[in-house]
Amino acid sequence: MTIRFGLLGAGRIGKVHARAIANDPNASLVAVADALPAAAEAIASAYGCAVRTIEEIIGSSDVDAIVICTPTDTHADLIEAGVKAGKAVFCEKPIDLNVERVKACLEVVKANKGTLMVGFNRRFDPDFMAVKAAIDAGKVGEVEMVTISSRDPGAPPYEYITRSGGIFRDMTIHDFDMARWLLGEEVETVQAAASVLVDKKIGELGDYDSVNVILRTASGRQAVITNSRRATYGYDQRIEVLGSKGSASAMNMAEANIEVATAEGFHRPPLLNFFMTRYVAAYANEIAAFIGAMTSGTETPTTGTDGLLALVLAEAALKSVEEGRAVKVAEITG
Amino acid sequence: MTIRFGLLGAGRIGKVHARAIANDPNASLVAVADALPAAAEAIASAYGCAVRTIEEIIGSSDVDAIVICTPTDTHADLIEAGVKAGKAVFCEKPIDLNVERVKACLEVVKANKGTLMVGFNRRFDPDFMAVKAAIDAGKVGEVEMVTISSRDPGAPPYEYITRSGGIFRDMTIHDFDMARWLLGEEVETVQAAASVLVDKKIGELGDYDSVNVILRTASGRQAVITNSRRATYGYDQRIEVLGSKGSASAMNMAEANIEVATAEGFHRPPLLNFFMTRYVAAYANEIAAFIGAMTSGTETPTTGTDGLLALVLAEAALKSVEEGRAVKVAEITG
Amino acid sequence: MTIRFGLLGAGRIGKVHARAIANDPNASLVAVADALPAAAEAIASAYGCAVRTIEEIIGSSDVDAIVICTPTDTHADLIEAGVKAGKAVFCEKPIDLNVERVKACLEVVKANKGTLMVGFNRRFDPDFMAVKAAIDAGKVGEVEMVTISSRDPGAPPYEYITRSGGIFRDMTIHDFDMARWLLGEEVETVQAAASVLVDKKIGELGDYDSVNVILRTASGRQAVITNSRRATYGYDQRIEVLGSKGSASAMNMAEANIEVATAEGFHRPPLLNFFMTRYVAAYANEIAAFIGAMTSGTETPTTGTDGLLALVLAEAALKSVEEGRAVKVAEITG
Amino acid sequence: MTIRFGLLGAGRIGKVHARAIANDPNASLVAVADALPAAAEAIASAYGCAVRTIEEIIGSSDVDAIVICTPTDTHADLIEAGVKAGKAVFCEKPIDLNVERVKACLEVVKANKGTLMVGFNRRFDPDFMAVKAAIDAGKVGEVEMVTISSRDPGAPPYEYITRSGGIFRDMTIHDFDMARWLLGEEVETVQAAASVLVDKKIGELGDYDSVNVILRTASGRQAVITNSRRATYGYDQRIEVLGSKGSASAMNMAEANIEVATAEGFHRPPLLNFFMTRYVAAYANEIAAFIGAMTSGTETPTTGTDGLLALVLAEAALKSVEEGRAVKVAEITG
Repeated sequence: MTIRFGLLGAGRIGKVHARAIANDPNASLVAVADALPAAAEAIASAYGCAVRTIEEIIGSSDVDAIVICTPTDTHADLIEAGVKAGKAVFCEKPIDLNVERVKACLEVVKANKGTLMVGFNRRFDPDFMAVKAAIDAGKVGEVEMVTISSRDPGAPPYEYITRSGGIFRDMTIHDFDMARWLLGEEVETVQAAASVLVDKKIGELGDYDSVNVILRTASGRQAVITNSRRATYGYDQRIEVLGSKGSASAMNMAEANIEVATAEGFHRPPLLNFFMTRYVAAYANEIAAFIGAMTSGTETPTTGTDGLLALVLAEAALKSVEEGRAVKVAEITG
Repeated sequence: MTIRFGLLGAGRIGKVHARAIANDPNASLVAVADALPAAAEAIASAYGCAVRTIEEIIGSSDVDAIVICTPTDTHADLIEAGVKAGKAVFCEKPIDLNVERVKACLEVVKANKGTLMVGFNRRFDPDFMAVKAAIDAGKVGEVEMVTISSRDPGAPPYEYITRSGGIFRDMTIHDFDMARWLLGEEVETVQAAASVLVDKKIGELGDYDSVNVILRTASGRQAVITNSRRATYGYDQRIEVLGSKGSASAMNMAEANIEVATAEGFHRPPLLNFFMTRYVAAYANEIAAFIGAMTSGTETPTTGTDGLLALVLAEAALKSVEEGRAVKVAEITG
Repeated sequence: MTIRFGLLGAGRIGKVHARAIANDPNASLVAVADALPAAAEAIASAYGCAVRTIEEIIGSSDVDAIVICTPTDTHADLIEAGVKAGKAVFCEKPIDLNVERVKACLEVVKANKGTLMVGFNRRFDPDFMAVKAAIDAGKVGEVEMVTISSRDPGAPPYEYITRSGGIFRDMTIHDFDMARWLLGEEVETVQAAASVLVDKKIGELGDYDSVNVILRTASGRQAVITNSRRATYGYDQRIEVLGSKGSASAMNMAEANIEVATAEGFHRPPLLNFFMTRYVAAYANEIAAFIGAMTSGTETPTTGTDGLLALVLAEAALKSVEEGRAVKVAEITG
Repeated sequence: MTIRFGLLGAGRIGKVHARAIANDPNASLVAVADALPAAAEAIASAYGCAVRTIEEIIGSSDVDAIVICTPTDTHADLIEAGVKAGKAVFCEKPIDLNVERVKACLEVVKANKGTLMVGFNRRFDPDFMAVKAAIDAGKVGEVEMVTISSRDPGAPPYEYITRSGGIFRDMTIHDFDMARWLLGEEVETVQAAASVLVDKKIGELGDYDSVNVILRTASGRQAVITNSRRATYGYDQRIEVLGSKGSASAMNMAEANIEVATAEGFHRPPLLNFFMTRYVAAYANEIAAFIGAMTSGTETPTTGTDGLLALVLAEAALKSVEEGRAVKVAEITG
């Protein structure tokens, strides 16, 4: 069984997914669409697929699944169109920046018995998967405390920040998903603190660049997330899970695994400093997981609900900062 | 110049300080007092000093300085008696569990122009000192975010917990002091979450065993503290400081610095699992620093105010948990 | 400019090279040959190339370069046929197990002004390349002492061992090449010790499984190579270079970059335990380097002479073991 | 039972042993002797012991044991005088630089049923002891290959080199002892290579500064020792033992256990760069072991024979360099 794919969006991340699809023995890339003809053409010629419009792809009878890599504000509409046309849908996060819009979209997916996987790529990172496997194998006992350190090498362009929905919806959202995944229990309360320390201009745009969040579940499990928009030494991505029997941690990935020793001491190279390099295996694994779910008829490992709940935590964190109090998740979900 | 010492309390930590004093070329141990005669005798015979009562030591003309290692509820009274008698005072933390009592005690110290150093031993750990030196040398630039992981191998006896003032005043207080030291700016707001995950009995005693705290300064610098009363792998004590130019971290100390590789993978020994082993160098260094301040006539590196402010943060953290909101430090200090 | 490739041998390593060629924008895979039709067909269908005989490929006018992945005893003949036909040749190591045969082959290459690159994949490992780059950048000063630890997870099949030419020609040969590359000066003297510790049967077949070698150059630079056919914890591959200013080292690659801490201590996963997994990047890089040399018209980064000289060191090491003395390289090269 | 000590030699290492003896509850320091009165006085006043001549100490009825820290060329004579006077003897390595003189000395020890412990301090380093304990606990299976990296921060003064007996007898001798201890089987054959790479003047003095040695036992176990008189990054002291089930390794000790990350990468401090700092615990442990053996009536953990056999390996290594061949240990021992 070969899953035939249509790719919506031929940008940076679209290229990554195109390669993953083309290299998968159970998948084929049938068509690609992009507002920029040259971008679509480049993928089409590299992998021998057709260039079509988005509408054509959604309407194509030779396409089983679509991968949505278009701008965020188109995601919900395209998901709805896709599931209505009977396509399985893989969509880059987020579904939308507005909780109500996401809920409405998920209703449409549900009404059409659609398949929707949201691209939380970090769940598919081999090291993070190994931590999760250690937890699932009982190696740390009952999970109690999760610590996530997640720092970007640098802030995105100002123009992007204004459209991003803010650091909690744009950056921390990955960590909210990781925390839910690792805690093994839904979050009940959110406390957050936020500062502008990296770049005043980010504050003038109404956003923050340095935040800490505490999540607490009903049984008292806790997760701490620490984010910064600046880590000079590279893309800092670590998780640590403390349980009743011990802990499991995933370390960072350096540019090279070498050490130089001189009179000044021991020196190792900086970390990989770009998310597409750091998570190259994760991107390939998530598409493989999507294909695997389709060929086996099982549920996708991440769902629209995962997309919704991470966004809800982002809303709660923002509310916590604004109101200086612990915010119940139920206040957001209603 | 030799500083002549009287030691009040000959228990576990008293013994450690006795050895440090006896080995210091600028100090001599003149007398020791303890409610248990055998404990005092043991130190007296090991180091060739006299056994006296607490009152006798405070009244001794051949004693320049006293080291208070008696139970917590005697600290404030002994500090006051000591400074009134013109003795320089080194006191184990805390001064008292009650903020008002501490304030009153510090007033007495001030009125008598007394010298008071509070024993925040961790500031004198060689690795933590190296991190602080890196900060002070400008290696991480402006400090922005501090992360402190501090986990005990196991919970103290129930009887101790009931007298401890609770986890924030007993355990986190060390981390509050570390955070103040590393942030380089006073804390303005405290947010905390607390759970009972290790031992239900601790909850029944009105305490918590698993907490996370976010501290925020006026300029927006933040510190996160994560505590647990159980780390099966040993005494987990790490700090990490992120700044505008990079980060500085102190790693844990293992029982031995070896690695065994087998078909199951690579194995390293657990961490040192007792605070007196983990901080053996720190205890020696803090007494040396006290002696150094006295012989040079400079201020002690930690003061009564440090003792007060760490306690204030503990109060604020507890209030944050109880009221589910961010608590201003000013609410506690009045 | 696109280099058109013919692939001789469609086995394990042939597949790896086929993928590298197919994914290179400056190369195309035109044809493949293998004694087993199914193996050739598999590659042909995966990459859309033709199946031809070895003779047909060497005679093909639409082929610029050949990659030789056939059994060792065919290498020298195929290299000669290739260069005579005007093809650039990439050949898996070794050229031959006999020094005289290699010399004769290289004469043919020279007479035909042929291009020959020998596949010493380890030179193309990103971490080892980073160590070499550190040396070339002067970070360790003058190179003085090289240490290479190279241990296989397990011994090859007995049948392979009998055809391998022995551990020095089969396994250490990689390390001889690495040593030459890192020392930056030709080896003058070889001392070696050899034992059978892993499997007595290997000794009965006339081979060793555990060896140590010291190489010494004319100026006194030294390299130590330590080999074993058994490392239970995975494929152990480390290099360390000491120079006048410091050292540079490359660490091992683990299955996952995680750590699990329990009451027994800290545990990390075993090493990658298969050379094709461990050196996946190196294999891709070496083909890219071959293509790069062809398109730029520069010399290939490894040559037939490198193949010869590594084999000479293997001969010298064996002679050192047999005769219990330091053997001059000149004794072998004549 | 308290062992009463006389200390012969109040120099650098004498002070270290004086402190260890003074702090041991089962020992007392009775007297000290040194050619320099001030050196002896300093120890006498610090620990409240008498100053006597060497002859007086050896003849003292209130002395049970002597510790010899005088110049190397006095060791054998003092050992003999000590055992003849019925004193237990702890002697810094080496017994003598001449194998025959050592043999003669050991004959005297034997004839007098004397107790002699030779100060191979590294066997008492906590990390190396942990490696040995792992071996003894069967964690690596049968020992097969030992690798010892031992590099000094810098060369000793020229004057010292001329009296040292050369690098093999002065520096490698520690590693020869470690190798014997870790191999668990006596060495049969020695191969060595030596160069002058650090300082030409060392060569002019007839010595080497960079050596590699391979040791081989009768059953084929092997050890590699790599030495240099210069490691800019500190005192480099590592051991690694490969066995049938896995490996055990001891890592280096850094000045501080911290890491600073900047845009240039991750930086750790250099290694402890002085043997007395690096082996501070080892020195205390070896004296404790000597006292322990005396109080328990068991054999000392290192003996005169250990001193002899390490020296024999040094002789063999030197012969191997000079004659360019593998040298049998039996050639030296006769």
